Amino acid sequence: MNKICKVFDVKYPIVAGGMVWCSGWRLAAAVCKAGGIGLIGAGSMTPEVLREHITKIKDACNSQEKGTWGVNIPLMKAGVEEIIEVVKEELPPVVFTSAGSPKKYTKTFQELGIKVAHVVSGSKFALKCVEAGVDAIVAEGFEAGGHNGREETTTMALIPQVADALRKAGADTPLIAAGGIASGRAMAAAFALGAVGVQVGTAFALAEESGACKEFKEYCTSLQEGDTMLVLKKLSPTRLVKNAFFDRIMEAENRGASAEELLGIIGAGRPKLGMFDGDLIEGELEIGQIVSQIKEIKTAERIINDMISEYNTIILEKFA
Amino acid sequence: MNKICKVFDVKYPIVAGGMVWCSGWRLAAAVCKAGGIGLIGAGSMTPEVLREHITKIKDACNSQEKGTWGVNIPLMKAGVEEIIEVVKEELPPVVFTSAGSPKKYTKTFQELGIKVAHVVSGSKFALKCVEAGVDAIVAEGFEAGGHNGREETTTMALIPQVADALRKAGADTPLIAAGGIASGRAMAAAFALGAVGVQVGTAFALAEESGACKEFKEYCTSLQEGDTMLVLKKLSPTRLVKNAFFDRIMEAENRGASAEELLGIIGAGRPKLGMFDGDLIEGELEIGQIVSQIKEIKTAERIINDMISEYNTIILEKFA
Repeated sequence: MNKICKVFDVKYPIVAGGMVWCSGWRLAAAVCKAGGIGLIGAGSMTPEVLREHITKIKDACNSQEKGTWGVNIPLMKAGVEEIIEVVKEELPPVVFTSAGSPKKYTKTFQELGIKVAHVVSGSKFALKCVEAGVDAIVAEGFEAGGHNGREETTTMALIPQVADALRKAGADTPLIAAGGIASGRAMAAAFALGAVGVQVGTAFALAEESGACKEFKEYCTSLQEGDTMLVLKKLSPTRLVKNAFFDRIMEAENRGASAEELLGIIGAGRPKLGMFDGDLIEGELEIGQIVSQIKEIKTAERIINDMISEYNTIILEKFA
Repeated sequence: MNKICKVFDVKYPIVAGGMVWCSGWRLAAAVCKAGGIGLIGAGSMTPEVLREHITKIKDACNSQEKGTWGVNIPLMKAGVEEIIEVVKEELPPVVFTSAGSPKKYTKTFQELGIKVAHVVSGSKFALKCVEAGVDAIVAEGFEAGGHNGREETTTMALIPQVADALRKAGADTPLIAAGGIASGRAMAAAFALGAVGVQVGTAFALAEESGACKEFKEYCTSLQEGDTMLVLKKLSPTRLVKNAFFDRIMEAENRGASAEELLGIIGAGRPKLGMFDGDLIEGELEIGQIVSQIKEIKTAERIINDMISEYNTIILEKFA
């Protein structure tokens, strides 16, 4: 039996990433009902809003679902302690942590019966996850949307190296691949590389149940290869859609703007402005490189079913 | 039968990239004898040196080999017309062109009985290859070493999109994946994504028969994840190993240095200095991200046999 399915008690080893302004309870619940792991993204939520989303998903999903739900917590988030408190009180079945040390909260959550995965961008961080005793590791490549690792290692290069590092360390922690995965073909590729699960961001950000606004989703289905770029490397490297806001960042970076100046250009509230309020020109539009493959807004269930069906077809066609 | 094997009449659908200062006749011949497509890299050769390498490989390889050999021509190379003339006279069985338009020489070479492949970094360029009537397309991702595309699309994101674009255009041109591929696992991943062949650079650059110096090869086997980076985006984006020379480029780029200043920092002869003469501090060291996976210098034959054997194991383990 697939290890991710076993550890998290789900039908399919597919995780819907916890994305700011996209991953509310509706998306997480739809993924949970369709057999995957649906994450609520706490990154863009106040503690009160998070509690509200958890209450709603508890109503929507019961223990009979094929999948499960959880909360993604970016540990560098300002005021993360309050988010942690909500999670400790509400007890989601699963927590995915990212952008910080896996050692800080893993044991705390596990002692409360919560399964914990942590997101990394390199083998040395994966080994820290093993020390922290996480239940699963997500290794995310350069092609992923939004905030990203500094080493720029792509999914193709990253997954086999993390898998090797885990094997050498004698760890059997299951590995989930992320970055550039929006199809059954990519899922098969990730499995060939050594993953046993996939975390899918971009495709679910554009799902019907995603909390992002319609304008953002529809605009994203029109994007072409090369329409996203990793910038803001002097701050926290972030993959953005190229728009007027992006152009100002690019212009500033090309003339050597400092981190301080870049912070000034970004200001506050840009991701909400773009992804939630639908300002496609001045908003910060976070999405992965694989966005150009997605030409249709689907339900989360169809995304999962299409991935599984394509995966099975590819295995038969290519490798049987 | 595998399409690349059929079109190029080789045992294995593995191409050894034509890399500056690495891909001389020795490496190309070893790959040819081991059943792959071994390319001589004309990018770092004068017309006379190229002719010498072709003469030697003609002596070393005959038509009974399991593989074949060819010449890689970066079309933007200064004085490429003379290189083209040598190729037209010497008639290698195969030519791979890159960094330029596939329309310029494809028909000329094909009329002389030469099979032609062209290297691209995006779907729109792949469609130009179809119009030009090439025999195969190499799609190379962001993780590849040396000169690289501007859109930064990774192999994981690139291959399925190029495969889809070809299918939509009704083209059955076989697709070769490049970038981050140095193992049978990655070959299986590339096949799942839609490729029917792989072009391997980094692993063969470090092969025993590679023309690169021992110092460069040994140093490369010590590199870790994150030790290469794509820079020089104001000129031609290039993936380099981080050394003192790289640091000066980085420092200049961070303060907004112009293309002219960057050209001044680079000067002339840096790739030779690093990869051929072995100055690991001041030389330009071009290698792919997957270098950190390679911990041993192997013969080209062993690289190919290990890849095929791992590919077969992975298929059985993961997908049977």
